[in-house]
Amino acid sequence: MISHLTDRVWTDELKQRVGERVLLQGWLHRFRRLADISFLVLRDAHGTAQVVIDDPDVVAEVARLNHESVLAVSGEVVAVDQAPGGVELHDPAITVISEADVPPPFDLYRPVIKAQLPTILDHAPIALRHPKRRAYFAMQAATMSGFRKSLGGLGFTEIQTPKIVASATESGATTFALDYFGRPAYLAQSPQFYKQVMVGVFERVFEVGPVFRAEPHDTARHINEYVSLDAEMGFIENEYTVMAVLTHAIRGMAQAIEEEAAPALAVLGLTMPGVPERIPDIHFLDAQALITAATGEDLSSEPDLSPANERWLGEWALREHGSDFVFVRGFPMSKRPFYTHPDPQRPGFAAGFDLLFRGMELVTGGQRLHRYQDYVDALGRRGEDPADYAEYLMAFRHGMPPHGGFAIGLERWIARLVEAANIRETTLFPRDINRLAP
Amino acid sequence: MISHLTDRVWTDELKQRVGERVLLQGWLHRFRRLADISFLVLRDAHGTAQVVIDDPDVVAEVARLNHESVLAVSGEVVAVDQAPGGVELHDPAITVISEADVPPPFDLYRPVIKAQLPTILDHAPIALRHPKRRAYFAMQAATMSGFRKSLGGLGFTEIQTPKIVASATESGATTFALDYFGRPAYLAQSPQFYKQVMVGVFERVFEVGPVFRAEPHDTARHINEYVSLDAEMGFIENEYTVMAVLTHAIRGMAQAIEEEAAPALAVLGLTMPGVPERIPDIHFLDAQALITAATGEDLSSEPDLSPANERWLGEWALREHGSDFVFVRGFPMSKRPFYTHPDPQRPGFAAGFDLLFRGMELVTGGQRLHRYQDYVDALGRRGEDPADYAEYLMAFRHGMPPHGGFAIGLERWIARLVEAANIRETTLFPRDINRLAP
Repeated sequence: MISHLTDRVWTDELKQRVGERVLLQGWLHRFRRLADISFLVLRDAHGTAQVVIDDPDVVAEVARLNHESVLAVSGEVVAVDQAPGGVELHDPAITVISEADVPPPFDLYRPVIKAQLPTILDHAPIALRHPKRRAYFAMQAATMSGFRKSLGGLGFTEIQTPKIVASATESGATTFALDYFGRPAYLAQSPQFYKQVMVGVFERVFEVGPVFRAEPHDTARHINEYVSLDAEMGFIENEYTVMAVLTHAIRGMAQAIEEEAAPALAVLGLTMPGVPERIPDIHFLDAQALITAATGEDLSSEPDLSPANERWLGEWALREHGSDFVFVRGFPMSKRPFYTHPDPQRPGFAAGFDLLFRGMELVTGGQRLHRYQDYVDALGRRGEDPADYAEYLMAFRHGMPPHGGFAIGLERWIARLVEAANIRETTLFPRDINRLAP
Repeated sequence: MISHLTDRVWTDELKQRVGERVLLQGWLHRFRRLADISFLVLRDAHGTAQVVIDDPDVVAEVARLNHESVLAVSGEVVAVDQAPGGVELHDPAITVISEADVPPPFDLYRPVIKAQLPTILDHAPIALRHPKRRAYFAMQAATMSGFRKSLGGLGFTEIQTPKIVASATESGATTFALDYFGRPAYLAQSPQFYKQVMVGVFERVFEVGPVFRAEPHDTARHINEYVSLDAEMGFIENEYTVMAVLTHAIRGMAQAIEEEAAPALAVLGLTMPGVPERIPDIHFLDAQALITAATGEDLSSEPDLSPANERWLGEWALREHGSDFVFVRGFPMSKRPFYTHPDPQRPGFAAGFDLLFRGMELVTGGQRLHRYQDYVDALGRRGEDPADYAEYLMAFRHGMPPHGGFAIGLERWIARLVEAANIRETTLFPRDINRLAP
């Protein structure tokens, strides 16, 4: 049976096998030796199963093994009300497939890993085996699946654009530099230009891939390499078209987690937040006015929202609109990247938005410039030479429709969902100013 | 209607709209001005539509536009047997959405672009709009979808692993070096170690992402950044388990192209090759013996297959087995990476394989070492210090099952399918020793 690769069954299939002898394969998750009976918990990709051992020879054989040794366990499936999941394996025959050389650096069977975050990250290859940490990344996988399904359903085409690039897209100060066969090159800060160029090809595109930001700060919400869920679409009316598609994508992501990562939600004891049919939106200036009215904070010279402002707006959206999500539109152009399209009614403000999720920026998006001359002017205003971008701006000399898009930070989405204190907890193998391995 | 974003219809929906006035949006693909009637071909993401213009004012307006200008065209859908697709738009009202500043560097309406490959690549943002080039990347998107679906159906979990890494996985000579906050780092040559580590977490994982190879050669079949479709799975019996899963994945990729990229296949006039229920396989030594018997070439001191050898085997597989695919197993260990598991029956040869597709290596895969001591020994034999890999080898000290996997080159798969002379033709924005942009 190709789905099982061998004649094993999964731990979550035992309930359907009561009365049969079956073969399980997995890791020695826990061993508890009592006076006349011992319990082995075996972990596989689907969950755990309890194995009851009463043969003293088998007990002795298992007792000498380190936790995380890999075992094949065949036994009889017995329904037992008190057993976790209602079934357990009796009369086991145990074969050691691969022995763990040393004990794990922390107990994986405890409800949470009893270690500080740096220790957990140093031992990520083992820590990720903990059912709760594994659940985070099952939710990530489901998120990617839901993102693709929801956009695929709207006719978006998946692309994979290069990560070694000739010029910065966001801001030159935060690029990683690279020696490319003797020439200077950079790691892509985003697929921004490429996804825009591809609007000229497929009209609607998305990409799931790594982005690289050489920001030298060390905070709980930044990492230097992360996974970006990017989308871009042509023939939009304005930023509201983009916001509608983003809402659809977020709903698809949430639904996929519920459907495809249900065991992960169960392990974490989580329920997914609802995504409103229409996410509330507020203009940047109105948001500032609300915060000033409520807190007295003078924001009149602030061109952006502080993390505290974002938290306030998140609470406001929940209180006033019952929504974990809120759009803030119309940030001042001065703080937005050069490709940002201004709001035609208020040219000093962007036809763009941030989507806050539970009081933190999760997505940035909006309408982009689509005329070549507008790019030349925008770059000129920032003191940049359009010639440095000639190969990307080419698309705009050859007819580009009004278009826009957005970028969702995958790790941040999961971090807010599981209410992680630090984004590194929901990053598979984080890269930060101090950490390059594992 | 969110699928259309606006009140437009797609060009491939016209057949269902005969007799109605509809709005199309797209690019001025072609304009042919005849004596008393003119034809405009409008291109959108779904195809092209012919628009008949007889009003001299409208003809004059369109005639002054450069090709690739972006237009909105509303008109009446009329069934006309001679028209391409059986329908055309009459009595059009045309609005210019966005004017192309200059004519395209080549005609996009010709059956193929009349330019040399370097010119095409220099103008990729425009060349990719050609229906045949666009078709290649629609096939790529469908391939990724089919890969994920087929492995997802077997319980594989998608992962995204870091691309900035602390050590080389394949061979130190072909890594791109990077300054990571003052420390040396590399771009990942493959997700090899990470996907192996993740076998300890999810048992079965896959990743679709970029890999980076600093190979300084300039050939028609190599590029320096490409998209790798990677999979890794635990609890395998041997390399045949991996080959069975790979066959399943290849079949899923081919099926997805047929289903999701049917218009692309039609544009290219292609039919997909069949994937045999069981792909023929041959041992490396037997393959050499066959080639020697047929050609007289002495291969007794060759530790690998040359491109000519691969072509010969491709022809042999087609002739003898009616298959475009053939597995070659058991390459000499000396030419395989250090993590390769030897064949227990013939320890000088690998428990691994290449999959040749139409006479070219498309996939490399096999069983990996899973015991820590075996890694220490294998690295020692190659003169490498296991301490340099400590953070990755950690997983193997803590119990890893027999496992294996494979990596498929996405661009190469499409190149062989469409019989491209150069892999750059099926690479979205190729990176090679001379090319870093666009």
